[in-house]
Amino acid sequence: MSIRETDVAELGAVEPNLEPSTTDLMVAGNGLMSRRLLLGLGLGGAGLTVASGALGADFSMPVWSKQPGPGPSGYGQPSRFVADIQRDPGRANPLYPGGGASRTPLHQLRGTITPNGLHFERHHAGVPEIDPAAHAVFINGLVERPLAFDYESLLRYPMVSRTQFLECSGNSGALFRDAAVDGTAQSINGLVSCAEWTGIPLSVLLDEAGVSPEARWVSAVGADAASMGRSIPLNKAVDDVLVALFQNGEPLRPEQGYPVRLFVPGWEGNVSVKWLTQIKLSKEPSQFRDETSKYTDTLADRSSLQFTFPMGVKSIITSPSGKMQLQTHGLYQIEGLAWSGAGSISKVEISADGGATWAEAAIDAQAGDKSLARFRLPWRWQGNSAQLISRATDNYGNIQPTRNQLLAEKGALAFYHFNAQQCWDVSSNGEVKNTYV
Amino acid sequence: MSIRETDVAELGAVEPNLEPSTTDLMVAGNGLMSRRLLLGLGLGGAGLTVASGALGADFSMPVWSKQPGPGPSGYGQPSRFVADIQRDPGRANPLYPGGGASRTPLHQLRGTITPNGLHFERHHAGVPEIDPAAHAVFINGLVERPLAFDYESLLRYPMVSRTQFLECSGNSGALFRDAAVDGTAQSINGLVSCAEWTGIPLSVLLDEAGVSPEARWVSAVGADAASMGRSIPLNKAVDDVLVALFQNGEPLRPEQGYPVRLFVPGWEGNVSVKWLTQIKLSKEPSQFRDETSKYTDTLADRSSLQFTFPMGVKSIITSPSGKMQLQTHGLYQIEGLAWSGAGSISKVEISADGGATWAEAAIDAQAGDKSLARFRLPWRWQGNSAQLISRATDNYGNIQPTRNQLLAEKGALAFYHFNAQQCWDVSSNGEVKNTYV
Repeated sequence: MSIRETDVAELGAVEPNLEPSTTDLMVAGNGLMSRRLLLGLGLGGAGLTVASGALGADFSMPVWSKQPGPGPSGYGQPSRFVADIQRDPGRANPLYPGGGASRTPLHQLRGTITPNGLHFERHHAGVPEIDPAAHAVFINGLVERPLAFDYESLLRYPMVSRTQFLECSGNSGALFRDAAVDGTAQSINGLVSCAEWTGIPLSVLLDEAGVSPEARWVSAVGADAASMGRSIPLNKAVDDVLVALFQNGEPLRPEQGYPVRLFVPGWEGNVSVKWLTQIKLSKEPSQFRDETSKYTDTLADRSSLQFTFPMGVKSIITSPSGKMQLQTHGLYQIEGLAWSGAGSISKVEISADGGATWAEAAIDAQAGDKSLARFRLPWRWQGNSAQLISRATDNYGNIQPTRNQLLAEKGALAFYHFNAQQCWDVSSNGEVKNTYV
Repeated sequence: MSIRETDVAELGAVEPNLEPSTTDLMVAGNGLMSRRLLLGLGLGGAGLTVASGALGADFSMPVWSKQPGPGPSGYGQPSRFVADIQRDPGRANPLYPGGGASRTPLHQLRGTITPNGLHFERHHAGVPEIDPAAHAVFINGLVERPLAFDYESLLRYPMVSRTQFLECSGNSGALFRDAAVDGTAQSINGLVSCAEWTGIPLSVLLDEAGVSPEARWVSAVGADAASMGRSIPLNKAVDDVLVALFQNGEPLRPEQGYPVRLFVPGWEGNVSVKWLTQIKLSKEPSQFRDETSKYTDTLADRSSLQFTFPMGVKSIITSPSGKMQLQTHGLYQIEGLAWSGAGSISKVEISADGGATWAEAAIDAQAGDKSLARFRLPWRWQGNSAQLISRATDNYGNIQPTRNQLLAEKGALAFYHFNAQQCWDVSSNGEVKNTYV
């Protein structure tokens, strides 16, 4: 008998400590508890299973403990038991071949890195299958020396790495609608992800070409069939923009721009042009289709506001979240993600009573400049109706607005840059649903 | 004609600035240049391609720019053009079913995160395919309340994330041999990787069970067919050990312990027991097979030294590295990775002349506690024979030893914990080969 079998048999009935004294640990209304409960304190048996019955006497050695499994492999894949953890690519539109988006399953992930297979996508003519040996990046326009770089030459340049979020400016756009959509954290908010991007500072390549003194804008164009193009002010381009070749350590995935993309920290995702093939210096922006017909803000008077690049301070609760069903009363961890295009997250507050009272959440120590920050707060649910809201503040003091504040600022025709506080309603039967407060 | 075609046609012959004045930028022997060259300075045309000829007049619009590609997908995969970037699983041994290791292709990656598909593996009875619904983690032995946790209950506990390396204590073991093995950075050093691990602090679960005062050791056992077990001192277990459920944001991969593993920061990889099913508290270590027959250090007098857990300070140059072939004279980036089981990397020095002179490399700003740090230094190769060595120092002042120092300390029978400086010899024809100095 193995050590494991012996010990399983030894396990007797256990009386879990299900109700510790928690009154003095409550920090805000409707069950919010101190974030200091997160570490090193007994959690009163939250979710623990008593080691008797099914897991004691009836326990039998599983088949995977009895016979060797397959050996090492070349490139690993997820377990078949997590086959439901997928991006949601929606339905293909025959009038828009290759167009569309897929959303990251935020409610099924933990930590702050998005694995490459689940990073959100947004395409305007699908994913080109580019042979790097037949691809080049051109720098031209107002430069001293027009240049072209092939993939092998780019690999010889110095690179830096940054772990930062990418968010589509259309993310959470459904929350502008009058009626609250019945969706999940993925379907409503899944156009945001975070990765370690490694690439050449664009400034290094621009230095090689020699930028002419009159240049003010950089136009980036992709090699996809949409010739996706965006204009970026030169001062941003030479500040922190990367010509990225690697994502979480390996070469970019095809849907993320393989072999080379722009990565523009903190700005709307669309300007991080994928499948990058041209950088053109100019006095004025290029007025590409995707900065006139799309990715402009329509104001209340129906005029268009262009070049609203930075992403605002924002947070979302990923658990509990839309379409989840709380099964038992007791302790839960309210978890979520926060980020800001301006810098790092300094504070996240949570309300369980629709904004009447607030408590500060614990933020993961890894929260960095323009990265996703993971926040958590223990919450005791005892069957009350609850309205869960998170509110983020960044290191510049920017505070995530309420939905009403955002609508008042952006007007009724807005679609992009929704960063307002979102509310998940928990009904007394445990159903979780998107709502407006 | 699209903007892109116009601009390609406009490109004329370019005279690249191939030889800037670099004499005053040399900082050590045999071509090592200032690390300040990494950003914002013209790099003298290193690797740039002149925008004429093949990329100018002969340029034709590639097929992927002419027709839409496939739309978004559920779970993305690498480009077929990087199909050669694989772990090296070696040959299967019929006498050791499922046993063996696969190594991370360090020489083909950049940045510091290892993508989940390429994280190194080491198995003692292959990869079990575990159904999380039929799996439990037991805590027993010297505790007040023996407990069992199923997967769903573990998901309700508070989690933290840490981006840290994992290294097999057998990594680089071939460098103990008398003759220098002719290998790559992958085949020699590929049993180290780095990921964002997310899980429950083991201390939280131990608090639930109530550790008895006389307990001094924690024994962790896996559910694989080897019942892989290791003993860990209790003070480490309650310090920073995680019961990890997520890796780079998504559930653990099967070969990394799905559904749950131990993660023991900074210690030899084997103690981070995968497929975790038991945590037993005891007065003495359990003397598992894998801490007696394996993972002990055989000393010069043939006695065994057990429980040599921490991984030393170490660095390796990943480019140029073994079996690479430098094609042209000119500027290269010497790149590599450094780490320490004690803390963070504070300095990496590089020599291009076999250790006679040294220059300090640039370290990526993301170097954190027990994470991989990426270092870089520009190097001008003009056809000389060169011996490239890196030497890391951590924030406790530990300095990576020379091979001779390590051999003198560990004796001729050592196999584990090789962390000495490694030398890549670059021959005058550009061939790169592992060597001893």
